[in-house]
Formats: sequence, structure tokens, C-alpha cells
Amino acid sequence: MVSRVKLSTERNASANTKKNGFDDYLIEEEDGINDHGVVTKCAEIQNAISEGATSFLFTEYQYVGIFMIAFAILIFLFLGSVEGFSTKSQPCTYDKEKTCKPALATAIFSTVSFLLGAVTSVISGFLGMKIATYANARTTLEARKGVGKAFIVAFRSGAVMGFLLAANGLFEAITGYGLGGSSMALFGRVGGGIYTKAADVGADLVGKVERNIPEDDPRNPAVIADNVGDNVGDIAGMGSDLFGSYAESSCAALVVASISSFGVNHEFTAMLYPLLISSVGILVCLITTLFATDFFEIKAVKEIEPALKKQLIISTVLMTVGIAIVTWIGVPSSFTIYNFGAQKAVKNCPAQDVADSCRTGAATNVIFGLALGYKSVIIPIFAIAISIFVSFSFAAMYGIAVAALGMLSTIATGLAIDAYGPISDNAGGIAEMAGMSHHIRERTDALDAAGNTKAAIGKGFAIGSAALVSLALFGAFVSRAAISTVDVLTPKVFIGLIVGAMLPYWFSAMTMKSVGSAALKMVEEVRRQFNTIPGLMEGNAKPDYATCVKISTDASIKEMIPPGALVMLTPLIVGTFFGVETLAGVLAGALVSGVQIAISASNTGGAWDNAKKYIEAGASEHARTLGPKGSDPHKAAVIGDTVGDPLKDTSGPSLNILIKLMAVESLVFAPFFATHGGLLFKIF
Amino acid sequence: MVSRVKLSTERNASANTKKNGFDDYLIEEEDGINDHGVVTKCAEIQNAISEGATSFLFTEYQYVGIFMIAFAILIFLFLGSVEGFSTKSQPCTYDKEKTCKPALATAIFSTVSFLLGAVTSVISGFLGMKIATYANARTTLEARKGVGKAFIVAFRSGAVMGFLLAANGLFEAITGYGLGGSSMALFGRVGGGIYTKAADVGADLVGKVERNIPEDDPRNPAVIADNVGDNVGDIAGMGSDLFGSYAESSCAALVVASISSFGVNHEFTAMLYPLLISSVGILVCLITTLFATDFFEIKAVKEIEPALKKQLIISTVLMTVGIAIVTWIGVPSSFTIYNFGAQKAVKNCPAQDVADSCRTGAATNVIFGLALGYKSVIIPIFAIAISIFVSFSFAAMYGIAVAALGMLSTIATGLAIDAYGPISDNAGGIAEMAGMSHHIRERTDALDAAGNTKAAIGKGFAIGSAALVSLALFGAFVSRAAISTVDVLTPKVFIGLIVGAMLPYWFSAMTMKSVGSAALKMVEEVRRQFNTIPGLMEGNAKPDYATCVKISTDASIKEMIPPGALVMLTPLIVGTFFGVETLAGVLAGALVSGVQIAISASNTGGAWDNAKKYIEAGASEHARTLGPKGSDPHKAAVIGDTVGDPLKDTSGPSLNILIKLMAVESLVFAPFFATHGGLLFKIF
Repeated sequence: MVSRVKLSTERNASANTKKNGFDDYLIEEEDGINDHGVVTKCAEIQNAISEGATSFLFTEYQYVGIFMIAFAILIFLFLGSVEGFSTKSQPCTYDKEKTCKPALATAIFSTVSFLLGAVTSVISGFLGMKIATYANARTTLEARKGVGKAFIVAFRSGAVMGFLLAANGLFEAITGYGLGGSSMALFGRVGGGIYTKAADVGADLVGKVERNIPEDDPRNPAVIADNVGDNVGDIAGMGSDLFGSYAESSCAALVVASISSFGVNHEFTAMLYPLLISSVGILVCLITTLFATDFFEIKAVKEIEPALKKQLIISTVLMTVGIAIVTWIGVPSSFTIYNFGAQKAVKNCPAQDVADSCRTGAATNVIFGLALGYKSVIIPIFAIAISIFVSFSFAAMYGIAVAALGMLSTIATGLAIDAYGPISDNAGGIAEMAGMSHHIRERTDALDAAGNTKAAIGKGFAIGSAALVSLALFGAFVSRAAISTVDVLTPKVFIGLIVGAMLPYWFSAMTMKSVGSAALKMVEEVRRQFNTIPGLMEGNAKPDYATCVKISTDASIKEMIPPGALVMLTPLIVGTFFGVETLAGVLAGALVSGVQIAISASNTGGAWDNAKKYIEAGASEHARTLGPKGSDPHKAAVIGDTVGDPLKDTSGPSLNILIKLMAVESLVFAPFFATHGGLLFKIF
Repeated sequence: MVSRVKLSTERNASANTKKNGFDDYLIEEEDGINDHGVVTKCAEIQNAISEGATSFLFTEYQYVGIFMIAFAILIFLFLGSVEGFSTKSQPCTYDKEKTCKPALATAIFSTVSFLLGAVTSVISGFLGMKIATYANARTTLEARKGVGKAFIVAFRSGAVMGFLLAANGLFEAITGYGLGGSSMALFGRVGGGIYTKAADVGADLVGKVERNIPEDDPRNPAVIADNVGDNVGDIAGMGSDLFGSYAESSCAALVVASISSFGVNHEFTAMLYPLLISSVGILVCLITTLFATDFFEIKAVKEIEPALKKQLIISTVLMTVGIAIVTWIGVPSSFTIYNFGAQKAVKNCPAQDVADSCRTGAATNVIFGLALGYKSVIIPIFAIAISIFVSFSFAAMYGIAVAALGMLSTIATGLAIDAYGPISDNAGGIAEMAGMSHHIRERTDALDAAGNTKAAIGKGFAIGSAALVSLALFGAFVSRAAISTVDVLTPKVFIGLIVGAMLPYWFSAMTMKSVGSAALKMVEEVRRQFNTIPGLMEGNAKPDYATCVKISTDASIKEMIPPGALVMLTPLIVGTFFGVETLAGVLAGALVSGVQIAISASNTGGAWDNAKKYIEAGASEHARTLGPKGSDPHKAAVIGDTVGDPLKDTSGPSLNILIKLMAVESLVFAPFFATHGGLLFKIF
């Protein structure tokens, strides 16, 4: 349906007349539909963005591919060595009377599924990016006809990605798959995050602050890199990330079930229950999506946000009914699973406070933003704690895993909303660069803004579910590693706990510094181009977009290695040298500390972003006293927003992956650690 | 000796001629010694600062006093209710054959010692402030004769406070005393911290950034409030804080000893060992101090920093010998206590990186500073983890308590250096306000700067020892509450852990927002005065200092209540409603998460401060490309420094107290929680 919007000039006019009949009631006027030059220009820009994104992802996948193969070999060697690469069957761990397949079989199976998981994650990210770069210019063109048409294109494209990913997730079954998926996700998130924020910060600092030219102005050399970044970071990175979450939470539920009584007694229903939930989720989201695109039509800007909100409500209500039915039919009456959600939302009121603090400069803005971010941790943490307690009371670790899965079951709708944001953002950029009328830009901005608030809720769900998934995986690890208790007061566990709580800081330091350094390089390049290319500011000369794209690509490829290695190697080093107790401490520490930083980083960044938008929109008397654009309070707000960029789009979301990935990795290697781990303590 | 420096004009000249003989070789020239007007002016300013500080502390102590009395009643009621206020002796908990005093005795004893602890803490803070406000103008006047004389006055005054406090600490013996001391410390730190930073940020934002007048300029209405703030925040607050640490670590060692085999077998040496360490510490520091003031003389600015460094080295070496002797003589050969230190230092090189990032504006400066602060967590955490593991291996929880005490044993020297900084800072302020020559200011600035680096090391020790103390107290709590294991994987403990890890964020959000709001009020008042008082900018009219002092006082009194209540009430609420397991989780979570935030907050703030100073000093070719004062990079650096102020001087240091206070409070109330706690789980 998205492809019905044509990007070539000839067929475009006829398609328009067909689709845009007289009964389409649109509040906005149609705007420049017959300007064929614009269509060609849009196609050109879309091409540049798509090429940049594809070339980045290919480079990224090459590097990560080498790492993945090396890691796959490691998995094989470590797990194979548990029984010294013996090919004989052994008595089972849980029931000594039966014989189980040798450790070598687990090693081969884990290695293969690790690679499969990585490949699926790559496909999720890559296809998402392809769809998004296919849809962005089409959204721009449809925006000429009004905001309703544009909404449908952007939302449908987002939905394609959502379903693709949810369907991929259904195939997964075992831990290696989860590990493969989420290690790929880590690199995708970190690399993509550095890419997009380096370009964004670099473009903004010189363009908006120094040169006073608008966002996405074609004169800005970093503008193409910025738009490429949206696709590789927000779309491909997030796609891999959420695929990882989904895969891991099903995986956690299945593993917990398999090592608990369900698995031992071969209760097939309970084993299949997580997959049933996922399947119902896809069905529910499919129905929900129709409400946005087919059952109702959006006619004005103010209807967009309610439409997205309705998506969340409808999918949640339907899903609750769906889960109830599945549980009723599929699960034996001896236990019930309770589904509970943790939600966070940055409301408008605190953003106003932050905006107010811009009166006295950037420093107070930063202080208030940080304080607000810290404060925003309180409610989600209580919600997570309650979820954990309640779901644990009903069905122990299995309950926690299923609660996580429940939170992610409407992933297709969530992803549709998440992906729709960057698509609209890109569409706006294309409109600006193609020199289209400012009406178009306003419409795409409205689409983007409506997506932002809902995306924040999505992020909250992602963090909450990550906490639950990690806890369930952690529980599975402890069973598999045959630890009886993880007692905080034993020094082995405590040093793990305190070091684990430090890891998210180390990781954030790396990613933030990476964004900072890459942005500095970008700023210098953009300044250089403005200073050395004659006629650039006047719009007579074209900037050298390619160099900026290259800077972002090189920086993110180079800078994603150290944080990635930190996360991937920590469980291996701790498990091998310090043993399973310390590793359990590290996992618990990283989980409880990482969740806090992830929430506060996302919300701090969001608050600054909203404060800036609040001033720019000037929708109230109060907001107008702070504006207009270019005033001192607005400049202070821009500084806050820039500080928030790496927090909310690089460090914050990557931390989710950190806590999950370390847990799933420990789970995969648990047999090895239990047999050969704790070298250091064995020596001394 | 400090009082030999006269602040009255008549006797001043004669005192000078006596003390300043021809054999005093000073590189700096003497400067304006015979200007009697200056002395009168200094005395006036000193008076204003001293009055402001005294009046603030009196107001603060009134409010806190009410809270303390209420809390003392609570302690009595809670602990008395353990055996229903029975006055009969009961069989002991640890040995059922002996009879112990009734719970009522513990209740009375704890209540009284709680109040005693609070009063001692008040005395520590108040006397420290009195000495500091006595010494500041004297340092200014001595600075006229050269940097060496000024150094001796400032350092001696600091030392008075250091010894006073260490000696006070010797009296303490039991948990109630520790709780009283550290709850007072909490309010002192938070209230004082808000006071000083509100004044500082407010004065800087209008004075330096908007009006381009120098630091401590007498035209700035907030300048007296700023100087008062140094005394109530950095001196009185820190005094109460370090007294609390010292009291608590001795207390932790004693309690752990009393409930372990030492106590049960009445091994008096092991029980007295912690007090022996403290006593040796006082002796060692006394000898060390003589090296700074009597054995050598400082003749030039560049000798100040080595002199302070020598203080740290000499005291550490002597103390190691002292501890070895005490341990050899006093402790049975069956166990040894290992003493290990965690140290952190912000080196110049990363500060340069941060300074460099100012080229591209405040946003990159803030990003790099945050990243650096996060990164600075890594090494101290590893050091703490190693300390914990090693000291636990030697003597379990007793080892950890003694390690903490070892780190704090040279507290008198540490405090002398810490207190010497704000005294020099104040002295500089007085010189500026009294209109003395810029030479004097340069000398006091040199004194101040040399103190800053060493104070950072002191902060590192404070955080490291706080972590160890809390862990030891936590261990004592678990024994006293009769919990067998604190298993992370039980939901009661895990929800405690994740909520506990959230508390430092909640607390920081409160304190940072308080500083922000108070600073906003201060900025508005200072702006108002500049706009409405004619002739103020020209120096013809005097600003209204009193209103600014009042704003800081009111704001800090009002704003210190909520964070204080959060810390004081959390253990009570959790223990009463959720029980001892969840409380154990909360303590572990707050400890592992609080340490990270405390370290990163202190170092982030320190890095921005150093980056600003690096640009201002312009000591290298590289630094000069970023300066001079007022350049764009310098403005960006000032913004970073302002953001860092509440982080490094309010939130960061208060978090130490948070983790210790919650642990000691839980320990005090442990018998009550073990008997009546966990109401909520009992009901459902």
C-alpha cells in the first residue's frame, strides 16, 4: 500500500487524481501537488539517504560479522570443553537416571543458534531500515495532500517493520538464539546511536547555534548524515534491540519452564504458552493497526496523537482479553500468570519547569534536567518492584519471564509507533531539503511530535521489560550454574554486586565520550565547509555531504568496539576467573544499577527535548515569554537538548541491552563456568 | 597561635614588626602592611560573615533539634516496645543461659546516646565554623606578608578543627551515638550544601556571566552569602559529616566485635583495638602537623602543594607504622587486620580534554564532563572491591570495619587540609571585598588551589571509607536482625535491592532541585538589586547583603527537610511494613548504587571546576588558545562549573551520609524490626 505512492513524476499525477477524490475531507489545503520538480528532488534525496544508510549497515555488519564468528568459535570451545569434547552421552544433570546428549551437542546447538539469532537480528534491523528509507520521501509527498494521508503512509511503514520483527521472534527457541540476537542488537544500538547523535549534535551545533540556519537546511553539510543516522540508529538499531528483547523474553520463559517442573514433567502446554502469547500478540496488533489506517481517517493535526494513544489502548485491552483466553484454555488451573505493566511518562508540567530554568541560562537548565531525570526513576522502579513481587508470587521466575513477555506482546504496535517517528522526521528533512513549502514541514513535524510522547512510553516499556527479562534470565543462570543462594553478605557476591553496579557507568562513559568525540569531528568538518566552500551560506554551492557521512560511519564503527567488548567480555572474564557466585553478583548489580541509569538518562534527555520544543512551539502565554527561537532562554534550551541527545538516544537505550545481554551470555556459558570457572580463587 | 594575628589596628603594627624580622626570607614582597584602613575593613567583613554563619547555624539547629527530639522519642518507643516496655531482665539472644538487661534498658541507652551523638556533631560543626570565621580575615592579613605566613595561619586553623573532631570521636561507643552523629551530619551537609551552592551559583550567574565583575566583588549583593556559605557548608557541614564517619566506623568495629566471638568471650583487647587505632591516629596527626607549620617554612607559592602532599604521605607512613605496632602489641596473633586504601584523583590530563571540549560550546563540555565522571568510578570501585575482599578474608566483617577505621585514622590531617581550603577561599573573598591589592588575592588563590587537589583525595577517602563502614554496619544489622542469608533471588530481597538502588537518585533529585530553585531566587534578587539600586555597578552604593543571606538561609532550611526525611524514614517504613529481608536488600542496593553516584558526582564537578581553572590560569600554550576570561570557551567552562557545583558540593558528599545513615539506623532499630517488622507481609 505504501508503494502505491509513486516517487516518479510521470505516474504520480494520475495516481494522485485517483486517490484524492472529492469525498476526502481534509482541513489542510493541498499544497503543490503538481510541482514535478519537487518529486524528482525528493527521489534524489531519498536515494542519498538510502545509500548512506545501506553502506553504513554493510560496513557495520562486516565488522560485527567478524566479531560474531570469533565469538561463535568461543562458544563452541567453551561449551565443548565442559566434558572435554566427549561425544558420549552422559547422565543428565537434573535426573541422574536418564542419559542426556553430550556437552558437545549443546555446544554445537548453541553455536548454530547464536549465529542464527545474530542473522535474524541483522535481518530485522536491515529490513526495517529499507522500509523506512522507502517510506520517508513517500510520506513527504503525501504530506502535500494533508496530514491524514501522510500519517497513514508513515504508520503503515512502521507497522510493516513491527510485524516483520514480531514474526521473526516467533521462530526462536533457545538461549544461544537470544544471545546472538542481543549481541547483534548491542552493536546495532551502540554503533547506530553514535552515528546518529554525532551527526545530529554536529549539525545542530554549527547549523542552528552558530549559523542560525534551520534544522535540515540543505546548506548544512551534515544534514544527509543526520537523516541517514535516523535510519541506522533509530530504525535499524531499535529494530535489532526490540527483536532481541522479544527473543530473550520468550527464551527466558522457555528456559525457566524447561528447568522447572513443567519441563521435567514434559508439560507441553506450559512450554508452549510463551509462544502462544506471542502469536496472540501478532493477531491483536494486526487488528489494532486497522483502527489507525482503515477504520478511521485522520483529518487534522490534533487527531494524530489521540489516534496513536488509541493504538496503545486498543492493543492493551485486546491483548488482556487475548492473554486471558489463552491462559484459560492453555494453562492448567493449578497456576495463573499475572500480567502487570510498568509505565513512565514525562508529563508536560515538569518540562515547563525545565523550560523556565532556561531563563537563568544553560547551567540551571542542565541542573533541573538532571534532577528531573533522577526523579523520574522513582515511579517506574516502584512499578517494576511491584511487578516482580506479584508475578513472582504467582509463578516464581516463570511468572517474571511471562510478565516480561506480556509487556512485550503488543510489540508490533509499539514498534509501529516507534518506527513511525523517525520516518516522519526523515520526511520533514526531505521536505526542507527539497525546498517544499513550510506547510509540508509543519505537517511532518506534527506527525513527529505526536510520535515522540508515545515513543517515550514505549521506551519505558522496553526498560521495564528488560529488567524483568534479565531477572528471569538471571534466575535461569543461577539454576543452570547450580548455585544454591546468592548471599549478598558473602564477599565473593558482594564484590560482584558493587563492580556490577559500576559497569553501566563505565559503559555510559564510553558511549557518551564516543558521541562527544565524533560530534567534535563533525563540528569541525561542518565549520570547515562553511568557511572554505564559497557561496555555501548563500545557497549557491552544494556542500560535501559525503565527507560528513563518512565521519559518522568511521567514528561509529571505531567507537562501538570498546563498549561492545566490555559487555561481551565481562561475563566471560568474571565467570572464568572469579566463578559463578561473583558473576551472579555482577549480574544483580548491573541489573539494579543499569535500570536506574537507563530510565534517568532517557527521561533527562526527553525533558530537555520537550523544554526546547515547548519554547519553540510558543503555544501558551508562558511559553511565549521564553521564546522566540534565538532568544537567550531558547539558546539555553538548545544546549540542554544537545546534552540530552547522547543520554536519551545512545547511552540510555543501550543500557537495556547491557543488562539483558550479560544475563543471557552468563546463561549460555553457565555449564562452562560451573565446571571450569573461578580459576583465581582456585589458585589462591 | 592563630589569635596572635591581630585584627585591631593599634596593636597590629607592633605585632607585625615583632613577627616579621629580617631573617624571614620571603620571595614575595610585603604588601600594604601599614594600611590601617584595610585592617578595619577586614574586621568588618569578617564580622558580617561570622554573624551570617552563626545565625544560619542557630536557625538550622533549632529546626533539626525539634526533629531530633521527635526521633529520639521514636527510638525510645520502638525499641522499648520490643518486649512491651517490660522492666524485667530477659534471657540473652545469643546465649539463652545468661540473663540480659531488658529491651527497655537498650531503648533508654540508645535514646540518650542518640542525643549525645547529635549534640557532639553539632559541637563539631559549630566550633569548626567559629574557628574558620575567626581565621579567614587573619589569613588575609597575613597574606600581605607573603604566602608562607598565610599558609601557616590557614593550616593551623584547619588543624584545630581536625583535632577537635578526632578527639570528640574518641568518646563514642555505641550505635545510638553513631546514629545521632550521622543524622545531624545529614542535615548539616544537605542544609549547608544547599546554602553555599545557592549563594555561589546565584552570585556567579549574575556577577560573572551577566555583569562581568570578578569573583567576590563587593558590588555583588550575594557575595557575603557566598562567603557565609563556605563556612556553614564546607566547614560546619563537612565537620559534622566526617565526625559522623569517624564515629560510625569505630562504632561499626565495636558492634561487630561485640556480637562476634570477641565480644562473647570478652576479649577486651579486640574490643578496644578500634579505639587504640583512633588514639594512635591523633598522635600521628599531631606530629604530622608540626611538619607543615613548625619544622619547615613555606617561602613560595609552588611549595604549598608539596607541603600538603607531604602531610598526606607523612601521616600515612607514620600511621602504618603506628597501626603495625598497635596490632603487634594489642591483637592476639590468631588474626591480623589488613589496611587498604581506595584513592581517586582527577588528573590534569582529563581536565584538559574537558577544557578542550569547551571550544564547541557548553553542551560538549557538559557531555565530556559527565562521561569523565562516569569513567572515574571504575578504579575506585575496583579498589573498594579489593579492599572488601582482602579485609573480609582476614577478619570477616570486623576486618572491613577496621579497614574503614584505618582509612579514617589520619582524619585530623585530612580535615586540616579540608578545612584549610574554605578558610583560604574566604580569606581571598575578604581581600577582594576590602579592596586589597591583587597580589594578596593571588596568594590566597594559590593557597586555595593547592588545597583543592588534596581535598579531592580526601573526598575519595571519605567515599571509600563510607562504603566499608556501611558494609560493616550492614553486616552487624543482619546479625542483630537474625537473618540467615540475604539471597538476591528471593523476591523480598530483590525488590529491596532495586528500590534501594533507586534511593540515591531520588535523594540527588531532591538536593539538586533544591539548589537549582534556591539559586534561581538568588539570581532574581541579585538582578533586582543591580537594576534598582542606583550607583551599585559603579561602586558608589552598597548592595543589600542581608536579603541575599536571608534567601540562602530560608531556602536551605526549607529544602533540607524532604531529603532528610527520605533518608531517616525509609529504613523505618521498610523495616516496619516489609520486614528485615527487604530492608537488607534496600541497604545493599543503596550502598552499591550510592557509592557510584557519589564518586561520579564529585569527579564530574571536579573536572569542570579544573577545566575552568585550567583555562583561567592560562599556564600553557594550549590553555591560552582557549582563554582569556570572557572568551566563548571560557563561558562554556563557567556553565560546566556551575552545573558541577551542586553535584560535587551538595549531592555527592551527602550520598556518603545517606548510605551510612540508613545502615546505622537499621542497626539501631534491628531488634524492633525483628520482633514487630514486616506488617504488610504478615497481613497478606
